[in-house]
Amino acid sequence: MKRILILTVLILSLLSGMATSSEEGMYPISEIHKLNLKAKGLEIDPLDLFNPDGISLIDGICKVGGASGSFVSPDGLILTNHHVAYGGIRSASTPENDYLKEGFLARTRADEVEAKGYIVRITESYEDVSDEVLSAIEDDMDPVARSKAVEQRIKEIVARAEEKNPGMRAEVSEMFIGKTYVLFLYTYLRDIRLVYAPPRSIGNFGGEVDNWMWPRHTGDFSFLRAYVSPDGSPADYAPENVPYHPKNHLRVNPKGVDVEDFVFILGYPGRTYRHRTSHYVAYEEEVRMPFVADYYGWQIDVMEAMGEGDRAIALKLASRIKGLANTMKNYRGKLIGLKRLNLVEKKRAEEKKLQAFIEADPDRKATYGNLLDNIDAMYREIRNASETELVLSYLRRSSTLLGMAYTLYEASIERPKKDLDREYAYMDRNWERTKRYLLMSLDTYHEPADRKIFKHMLWTAASLGEDKQIPAVKKIIGSDDAEEAIDAFLDKAFSTTMLTDKAAVEEALGKKTRALMQMNDPFIQMAADLYPSYQELRETGRARSGELSRLYAHLVDVKMAWLAKDFVPDANGTLRLTFGHIRGYEPRDAVFYHPITTVDGVLQKTTGEPPFDTPKKLQDLIQKGDFGAFAHPDLGSVPTGILYNMDTTGGNSGSAVLNARGELVGVNFDRAYEATINDYAWNESYSRSIAVDIRYVLWVTEKFAGAGYLLEEMGVK
Amino acid sequence: MKRILILTVLILSLLSGMATSSEEGMYPISEIHKLNLKAKGLEIDPLDLFNPDGISLIDGICKVGGASGSFVSPDGLILTNHHVAYGGIRSASTPENDYLKEGFLARTRADEVEAKGYIVRITESYEDVSDEVLSAIEDDMDPVARSKAVEQRIKEIVARAEEKNPGMRAEVSEMFIGKTYVLFLYTYLRDIRLVYAPPRSIGNFGGEVDNWMWPRHTGDFSFLRAYVSPDGSPADYAPENVPYHPKNHLRVNPKGVDVEDFVFILGYPGRTYRHRTSHYVAYEEEVRMPFVADYYGWQIDVMEAMGEGDRAIALKLASRIKGLANTMKNYRGKLIGLKRLNLVEKKRAEEKKLQAFIEADPDRKATYGNLLDNIDAMYREIRNASETELVLSYLRRSSTLLGMAYTLYEASIERPKKDLDREYAYMDRNWERTKRYLLMSLDTYHEPADRKIFKHMLWTAASLGEDKQIPAVKKIIGSDDAEEAIDAFLDKAFSTTMLTDKAAVEEALGKKTRALMQMNDPFIQMAADLYPSYQELRETGRARSGELSRLYAHLVDVKMAWLAKDFVPDANGTLRLTFGHIRGYEPRDAVFYHPITTVDGVLQKTTGEPPFDTPKKLQDLIQKGDFGAFAHPDLGSVPTGILYNMDTTGGNSGSAVLNARGELVGVNFDRAYEATINDYAWNESYSRSIAVDIRYVLWVTEKFAGAGYLLEEMGVK
Repeated sequence: MKRILILTVLILSLLSGMATSSEEGMYPISEIHKLNLKAKGLEIDPLDLFNPDGISLIDGICKVGGASGSFVSPDGLILTNHHVAYGGIRSASTPENDYLKEGFLARTRADEVEAKGYIVRITESYEDVSDEVLSAIEDDMDPVARSKAVEQRIKEIVARAEEKNPGMRAEVSEMFIGKTYVLFLYTYLRDIRLVYAPPRSIGNFGGEVDNWMWPRHTGDFSFLRAYVSPDGSPADYAPENVPYHPKNHLRVNPKGVDVEDFVFILGYPGRTYRHRTSHYVAYEEEVRMPFVADYYGWQIDVMEAMGEGDRAIALKLASRIKGLANTMKNYRGKLIGLKRLNLVEKKRAEEKKLQAFIEADPDRKATYGNLLDNIDAMYREIRNASETELVLSYLRRSSTLLGMAYTLYEASIERPKKDLDREYAYMDRNWERTKRYLLMSLDTYHEPADRKIFKHMLWTAASLGEDKQIPAVKKIIGSDDAEEAIDAFLDKAFSTTMLTDKAAVEEALGKKTRALMQMNDPFIQMAADLYPSYQELRETGRARSGELSRLYAHLVDVKMAWLAKDFVPDANGTLRLTFGHIRGYEPRDAVFYHPITTVDGVLQKTTGEPPFDTPKKLQDLIQKGDFGAFAHPDLGSVPTGILYNMDTTGGNSGSAVLNARGELVGVNFDRAYEATINDYAWNESYSRSIAVDIRYVLWVTEKFAGAGYLLEEMGVK
Repeated sequence: MKRILILTVLILSLLSGMATSSEEGMYPISEIHKLNLKAKGLEIDPLDLFNPDGISLIDGICKVGGASGSFVSPDGLILTNHHVAYGGIRSASTPENDYLKEGFLARTRADEVEAKGYIVRITESYEDVSDEVLSAIEDDMDPVARSKAVEQRIKEIVARAEEKNPGMRAEVSEMFIGKTYVLFLYTYLRDIRLVYAPPRSIGNFGGEVDNWMWPRHTGDFSFLRAYVSPDGSPADYAPENVPYHPKNHLRVNPKGVDVEDFVFILGYPGRTYRHRTSHYVAYEEEVRMPFVADYYGWQIDVMEAMGEGDRAIALKLASRIKGLANTMKNYRGKLIGLKRLNLVEKKRAEEKKLQAFIEADPDRKATYGNLLDNIDAMYREIRNASETELVLSYLRRSSTLLGMAYTLYEASIERPKKDLDREYAYMDRNWERTKRYLLMSLDTYHEPADRKIFKHMLWTAASLGEDKQIPAVKKIIGSDDAEEAIDAFLDKAFSTTMLTDKAAVEEALGKKTRALMQMNDPFIQMAADLYPSYQELRETGRARSGELSRLYAHLVDVKMAWLAKDFVPDANGTLRLTFGHIRGYEPRDAVFYHPITTVDGVLQKTTGEPPFDTPKKLQDLIQKGDFGAFAHPDLGSVPTGILYNMDTTGGNSGSAVLNARGELVGVNFDRAYEATINDYAWNESYSRSIAVDIRYVLWVTEKFAGAGYLLEEMGVK
């Protein structure tokens, strides 16, 4: 009966929801003051969200790896997703101590283990540097020169900012392509440790079956802690380091939210492409995404087959499979969404109207008359080159060893240069991280998988038309039978390479090009052979992006004139605000989704087999109804997932979902399948994102893991 | 917005729905007068439903094959399901005129083609004959004698009734096992013709993917017409026959129904097993259904692979695959439902209470003390014998030719007997039909499929333990290698058999056993070798069912005493009433199903590939919104499917769904997946059945097929 009352509220709320205007928007923090958030439902002062001159919620937000997190205690405790902490849990796991499978809990701070390779980043300030960046270029520059000029100017700005702010990292982010640039200053914390990760059967409950799906019952959360050196400065892992004290931390509300509550997220959404034209979307839909989805699907099949029956191999390959599967399902969802939305056709219709607007005025026509045609021409060029370029761009990554060899080879060329002339990854400020990633990639290396996938890409490359051949591949094959030649190369390469030896790789990292080549390693030789092709690809990319920057800058100008309004720039990994409401939706005819799931659904889904192998202890707690203070008052059960119409994308993973009073009520971790299309278009009727409910986080942590002390640290008990 | 209002109505109605009592029940027509149907929502006099002394709705209801249908015009027009008419559409189809694929429409009555093998049955009267049947037995009879006595007495009652009512068919149905028996008199119509069948892409839209599923968008309807000889008596197909004029026909309401409307069905539900004990359900769940589901699944794979790329073969195998797939998915649904419901455990708990009730009184204990133990012992016996018996019972059917040979052999033994001593299929009254089915089975015969499936079962039989061997199979193998021996037998059998020749089979039908054996046909030889095993199986079955009849009769007695109320007997293929409301449900946590689908969903599901290959013309009609008078006023679209909480099972297919005024508003064709469990238990929260909405029937018939004249015949226009 209570469930029914809830459903009624839901429906009535949907009624009101339909009446309010669209809630699209990932707003840069600079725009927050322009939004009338109080009228939307916020109950605190917008200055409490973001205050450039004082302490605000943003000081409790951080970036964890490529995703988001929140500080939830004064002692640097971080709440993020299980899948965001995944790499750290995996690297700490062994077949004997399988923390991915069994979970990890540090009973004391001394037990907290290193989450290797994790970096936590805190936004300290931002500054619009568009004028300075754009002063480096002129409208008639050739595209490559234009790209290089922008890159160079940005490097200068970054170097100056880091000199002025010792210990901080500076980054310049492009907001509107070719138009607006913002300088962000970040604190980087490098000693990050695991505090609590639930077992995979909770943290990844539902696995790839439920990924990108609602209704959801995944306990996708983990606790980390940031450490600094005893003097308070960022430092690499060291036993004597001490917990970091953030300027601010978020308050957790153990009561959670209810249907139609106002909520918002401050996080780091990755990339969206909503301002791109029909030509770009058509290329993505027809060429790039199908290629990648099929290739990743094949790789997953290969690696899953290899991991069957051998948990050590399965563990090695787990995070690679997870990453590929996530992208594959996302792309497949997008492809369905693009088709259903008919987005290319819609954009074409819009562009036709824009063209008419342009041609209605002689001055506009003179400036912008060829703009859309020129953009079209760029994407036609990209499409024509795509067959070779897609293969080339995935070839290097198809083998872990080849990828390492390439980095070693490129480093031997870049490192001798002046710092500002180096490619990004090889600049002093990035070099330590590049080296660390290089060495860590051996942790997930598995020769049979590497060989099989590498062979597949070599074969694909060899099968390209005569005029599309990649010279390095042609060199391997010569005039022999392609398959025999590839097999012979692989036999030799894998049997003689030194790159599987971490010490040898470390030694090779310091070598000059000539010394590197003298190692006579087949992978390094192939990397050297590939280098000119990749140089050419990079230059081509620079030329295209230089030209597209210019064109898209013009497009934003003329669209603003046409629609007479401002736009929110596409997401670009910088801090953004999105707001909305806890709200269900109708995914298809006669089906309606309620926006709050409960542990009842965990039992319903439980089969005993992964990914639905709920731990016995959790099943017992649910069956007993041992819900403590965490049951939803009407549903009579602990909420597991919440759904809302906020505008999110990849990178928002781990973001705190905050209520109208700015209290943490959930941890964002996914979107509904229909919302994978968010990257291209947002729609009130089905763009929905998913968080793990704070009540599930707290209930699992206290009742299942027995870590009530973490609730105390968060001030919940 | 209208959709939202509908959803609100739905939720509010669910509220009220939850408040009303359970609507379980397939009531025999004799019970209708005991139900206060007016209070439940019926707006007409219950005597209008069933009136033993006059014309009522029941006179407009018929049985079509093993399922149901309704007369919808004075000229014998019958509305039933596409899948009920399927065999008739298939048998009229050829690769050139593929009516299954393209649909069939008779533009005039002269164009109406024969639906071969179809029989339409109308219930004329019923009479309780329990006393007469039961007077044939005594409680201490041995079980086989008991079974035979009941069979014999029933044959006598039937013979007498048919003599008294020339032209009619009599049947005695067991209502409560071993307890109550009813004599039904039926008119059998044998000249049935196709009038309109939509293409498979409408009539079977969604195919096996959507089968047993809601939300549903299948146009599962067809029109047939019954013909009789010019003098009005039932007759076989003949060109000069004339349309049958039913005593009554149902009025179609083109306005359809809405959420929470009262509805009822008068139909012929097949079998339910709700009064069986935990022992029976455990055997079904653990032994029989998994065996059958796996075996059918394998057969489907085999036949589908053979039909690929050859439409003629695919057509031959289509209805066999459809039948197997339907059972397989039903069983798989039931297995999930049984597990989820934990029905065996629930029944065990109930039986424990019943046992306590029995033991609380010394007299009851004396009579019923061992009752449950004795039932348990019976099912333990069945379970112990199941390994051999399941293989044996499916062996004969695994080959079309072996099945035919067996019928020929058995006929040669049964036909010389006195009519009342014959097995059911060989009695004069059934002999014509048995012969017709025998000859028709060659229509779906395909040697490679027959051989592969037969071989599989022979191999399975050969693999049984030494003490479980079937003599006829042992004879084939002798002391040779089993696989080689089976192959040799099959080579010889398929190359020398005469049974693929219809004329030879017809000739064999009249032969005596000796003459039949002299044909030297390997299939007939094997049938003869198998005969003793099947005789033994039949006798064992008789013994068990005799004993179970006695035990279940006692069980009903003591349960009635325990619960102090009457029960509705399990469904047994006789005419029953069920009533309820148009109502959605919550299939799982946070998912809610609305009870009316629309053509919008047809477009959403359409992929262009079977089973989602909506005809272009239908897509256009939907896109144009050319809905005529058939749009739902709030949904603004043509409803396709309706969902209700009525209590149905297999055999209810094709039943008219009638509104509170007794008007036809839909054609029942399926249950929701969660309701496959209906055969064992009914539950208000998820026992839902599915009809095609009359508005979709009429809209497709008029707008898509251009057969407005059928609407006129039904009095709709």
